[in-house]
Amino acid sequence: MPSPAEMKAVMLQYVDRVNAGDLEGILALFAANGTVEDPVGSPLVSGAEALREFYTKAVASEARLRVVAGPYGSFGNAVAMAAEVTVPKVADMPDLGPVLIPLVEVMTFDDDCRITSMRAYWGEEEMQKI
Amino acid sequence: MPSPAEMKAVMLQYVDRVNAGDLEGILALFAANGTVEDPVGSPLVSGAEALREFYTKAVASEARLRVVAGPYGSFGNAVAMAAEVTVPKVADMPDLGPVLIPLVEVMTFDDDCRITSMRAYWGEEEMQKI
Repeated sequence: MPSPAEMKAVMLQYVDRVNAGDLEGILALFAANGTVEDPVGSPLVSGAEALREFYTKAVASEARLRVVAGPYGSFGNAVAMAAEVTVPKVADMPDLGPVLIPLVEVMTFDDDCRITSMRAYWGEEEMQKI
Repeated sequence: MPSPAEMKAVMLQYVDRVNAGDLEGILALFAANGTVEDPVGSPLVSGAEALREFYTKAVASEARLRVVAGPYGSFGNAVAMAAEVTVPKVADMPDLGPVLIPLVEVMTFDDDCRITSMRAYWGEEEMQKI
């Protein structure tokens, strides 16, 4: 199992690569069977092809992440942080305009410190027009 | 499924009851089969008797919670927050002295808005002597 410090470093790399719009860099952080549930309760994005589609949209939306608290480790294979996402233009909702979403993200990792799951906790009440 | 607002309200009641040292009040928020994993990666505390033992120690330790970010909802049965715990006296480690632990907590709920699981993300690196 990777150390908490190693997993926290990957979570911060993820933030940096999202903020750089670095699609290939983001995807390279995930395990082959990695999954994303963003927001928690929405259909699971699972596997390389689905992750590429999901993050292609995320990069196109110019989503930017700001860490608010953490990342924090655990005694297992997971780390978590609180963050704020700003999205200037939501791809599927062109009339919405820019939004800010405060959230919590939890990631789990495999033995190679690749992300096996990312779960983002936010609901409709968190989506703020800015 | 309870609404995100209802689940967030229970998370905040949990914070208030922990801070009041209200053991019965804390336990009343949990489902009969509720579980606690605090920190994530430690042995699961499962069921009424084990929860009572866990929170009896927590109340004796005078642990206090301060919400730092959230609580945030989801589109499922889960909510999350970032918080700081201060513990004046850790029961099993009398020589340690007061500590502060920043962490992320995730809770899931049943249809009656009782807590079915609480998971706290923090590792050794998060434990700060104060």
